Amino acid sequence: MIDLGAVRADTAGCHDLIFLDSAGSSLPPSPVLDEVLSHLRREAEIGGYRAAAERADSLEEGYSVFASLLGCEPHEVAFTDSATRSWLAAVDAMGLSPGDRVLVTEVEYHSNALGLLNLGIKIEPIPSDASGVVDVDALRDMLDSRVKLVSLVHVPTNGGLVNPVKPVVEAAHSVGALVLLDACQSIGQLPVDAAELGVDVITGTGRKWLRGPRGTGVLVIRDQSGLRPRLIDGKAAVWEFPDRFTLAPGARGFELWEYGVAERLGLIAAGKYALRLGMSSIASAVSSNAALTRESLASIAGVSVHDLGREQCGIVSFTKAGKSAEEVRDRLWDKGIATSVTYSTSTQYDMTRRGLTSLVRASPHYFVSPSDISAFASALTDV
Amino acid sequence: MIDLGAVRADTAGCHDLIFLDSAGSSLPPSPVLDEVLSHLRREAEIGGYRAAAERADSLEEGYSVFASLLGCEPHEVAFTDSATRSWLAAVDAMGLSPGDRVLVTEVEYHSNALGLLNLGIKIEPIPSDASGVVDVDALRDMLDSRVKLVSLVHVPTNGGLVNPVKPVVEAAHSVGALVLLDACQSIGQLPVDAAELGVDVITGTGRKWLRGPRGTGVLVIRDQSGLRPRLIDGKAAVWEFPDRFTLAPGARGFELWEYGVAERLGLIAAGKYALRLGMSSIASAVSSNAALTRESLASIAGVSVHDLGREQCGIVSFTKAGKSAEEVRDRLWDKGIATSVTYSTSTQYDMTRRGLTSLVRASPHYFVSPSDISAFASALTDV
Repeated sequence: MIDLGAVRADTAGCHDLIFLDSAGSSLPPSPVLDEVLSHLRREAEIGGYRAAAERADSLEEGYSVFASLLGCEPHEVAFTDSATRSWLAAVDAMGLSPGDRVLVTEVEYHSNALGLLNLGIKIEPIPSDASGVVDVDALRDMLDSRVKLVSLVHVPTNGGLVNPVKPVVEAAHSVGALVLLDACQSIGQLPVDAAELGVDVITGTGRKWLRGPRGTGVLVIRDQSGLRPRLIDGKAAVWEFPDRFTLAPGARGFELWEYGVAERLGLIAAGKYALRLGMSSIASAVSSNAALTRESLASIAGVSVHDLGREQCGIVSFTKAGKSAEEVRDRLWDKGIATSVTYSTSTQYDMTRRGLTSLVRASPHYFVSPSDISAFASALTDV
Repeated sequence: MIDLGAVRADTAGCHDLIFLDSAGSSLPPSPVLDEVLSHLRREAEIGGYRAAAERADSLEEGYSVFASLLGCEPHEVAFTDSATRSWLAAVDAMGLSPGDRVLVTEVEYHSNALGLLNLGIKIEPIPSDASGVVDVDALRDMLDSRVKLVSLVHVPTNGGLVNPVKPVVEAAHSVGALVLLDACQSIGQLPVDAAELGVDVITGTGRKWLRGPRGTGVLVIRDQSGLRPRLIDGKAAVWEFPDRFTLAPGARGFELWEYGVAERLGLIAAGKYALRLGMSSIASAVSSNAALTRESLASIAGVSVHDLGREQCGIVSFTKAGKSAEEVRDRLWDKGIATSVTYSTSTQYDMTRRGLTSLVRASPHYFVSPSDISAFASALTDV
C-alpha cells in the first residue's frame, strides 16, 4: 500500500495544486529534485567531469535499478534524452527498407508514425476490437514474413486503455517480427516486465509517471532482438586504428558519451523511488484514483468519459458538453487544478475513427488524494 | 576587455579551485546555474509543461541568441543534447553511401570517425602542414566529385591549434562537397561566424567554453546545405493523415519535441552571457591566458608544451619528463588545480603521427587569473 501522507510530504507541488497531469510531465518527489539540484551545484564547484566521476557508482547502479524496474538484464538497458530518442534509435537499428511491413496499433503516437514515414516506411494500422484495444485476431490475419516490426503502444497518450502485450508478442514472433513496446505512458504507473511480456524493445520516458526529470528516456534492447545501433559515437565502440572498430556488446552502444549527468542521476533516483514504493502498490493506487475519478465524472451533467479498453489505467479522458477542451482546462487551472488537452493530431487513427478532435486529460498519480479528486469533480461541475 | 573581478564574482567555483578544464566541462557562471536551478524548482511546483509554457518567450529567444553568437539566421539553429548528437544528425541527413568520399583532418575526434565507420563510410585523413594544421594544398589534391563531406575540426580536443576554415570551405565547395565545422572546442572561446566562414553546418556543445549545462548541444544547418533531417518526430513535421506529411522548414526539424527545458534555458543564458562579454573580448582574454600559461610552462625543467598550429587557442597540452600524464593531473588536483588528460584514442591520426599516447591538458578560460597561472606553474614545478 502507498502511504499517502508520506508520498505527499515528498511532493512539494501537490499541496498548492491539484495536480492531474502526470501523463504530461509529473511533479518529482524530493529525492529526485534534490539529487538533480545538488549535482548541478557540485558541477559548478568542481566542473562537470570531476563531479560525474564522484558519482560513477550511482551512475552505474542505474542500469541495475532499471533492469529491476523493467524485468531485463542491466546490459540490456540504455539511457537517452527522451522516449522518442529511444524509439527512433531502436527503429533505426532495424535497418528497415521500404518493402518491409510495419504494423502499428490505432493508438499509435504521431511522433512514431512520422518517424517511420520520414524513413520511407509505409505503416499499417491494426484494427481495434470492440473494447478499443488492439485486435489480436486481426493482427494474426495481417502477419506475413514481410512484417519486420509491430509497434505496440502500451498505454496511449489520449485515454485509459491498456493494450494487451503477450498475445501480440506471440503472434508477431511467429513470423519473426520484432515487437517494440512504447511504454512512454506505462512505465511508472504499471508493472512493465520485459521478460514476462516477451517484448524485444521497450522505450520510456522519465518525466511522466516515473516522476523523473525532463530530458530523460530509457531504452531496453533485449539480447533476443539482435539489434545493434546505427548512429554511434566513442561510447559505443573501440577504434582499431585506422579503419576497423569493435562495437561494445549490449545496449550501451545506443547511448552517446555526453549526457546531462544531473538529470540522469535524477532519473535513477526516480527509478529507485518507484522500486521502493513497489510497482504493484503504485499500480493499485493509480488504478483506484482513476476509477474514483471516472466515477465522480460520470455523475456530472454534461461530462462524458471517453476511455476505452478492458483493463484501464491512470489516464482519464473526457469532454464537457458546450465547452471546448481548452476552455475546460483553462478554467480548471484558474481553480488550481492542472489537467491537459490531448488532440487528434497526436493519435490520428484512433481519434479520427471516433470522430474526436480534442479531449481533456486528467491523470491522477498515487500522490493525488481522494479529496483532490472530489474537489476536481466539484470544480468541473462549476465550469 | 573582460572585467576579471566581475566574471570571477559570477563564478563560485573559481575561488576554491584553480580551474583549468574548460575544454572538458567548465564552471557555469551564476546566471546560468541560477536559471537551471530555478526552472527545475518551478517544474516541481507546477509540472514540466506549465513551467515550460511560462518560459516560451525565453526558449524562442534562444534561436536569436545563438544566431547572433554563430553568425547565422535563427531558423538555421537547432538545439540538441550534445555536440555529438548534432554531428550525427547532420551527417545522417547527408544520406552518404559507401561509395562517397569523406575527408577529415588529422585531428578528427574519434567519436566522429566511429560514427562514420559504423555507417560503412570510409574516411580519408587530409595531411597536416608543417605547423600541424590542415594542409589546404593537400586537400585540393584529394578533392573530386565523389567527395561529399569535409569534416573540419576547428580546434582539436588535444591541443592549441586552430584549423583554417575559409580556404577549406572554398576548396570543398569547388567540388560541391559540404563542410561540417566541428566547433565543439571553439564555440565560446573564439568567434565562430557561419556566414563569414562559409561553412554549411556547425556543431557545438554547451558545457565547454560556453559554460552552459551538460547535456546541451547546438547545431547550425545553413539553408545553403539543403539538408533535411532523417530521424524525426512530431516536432519536425505535420502528419497529413493517413500517409503524407510535411516537414517543417529550417533547422528545427533536427530537434526532438522533448528535451531538458531547464538545461536549454541554461544554455541560452550561457549564450547571452558570452554575447554580453563579447566574443572578441573573450577570445583575447583566453588567448592571453593561454600564452601566459605556455610561457610559464616553457621555463619549467622537464616540461614540454606540445601545441601545434600557427594561430593558437586556449588549450595548452604538455608532458612532464618522468611522470605519466595521469600522475601529473592527479598531483595537481591534490594541490587544488583541475586539469585533464587527453589520450591518443581520442585523436588517433594526430597522436599516432606524433608518437604520443597521452598529454596533460590545461585550458584556462577568461575567469582564470594571472596569479592562478603562476600558482599552477609553481605546483607543476613541484610535481
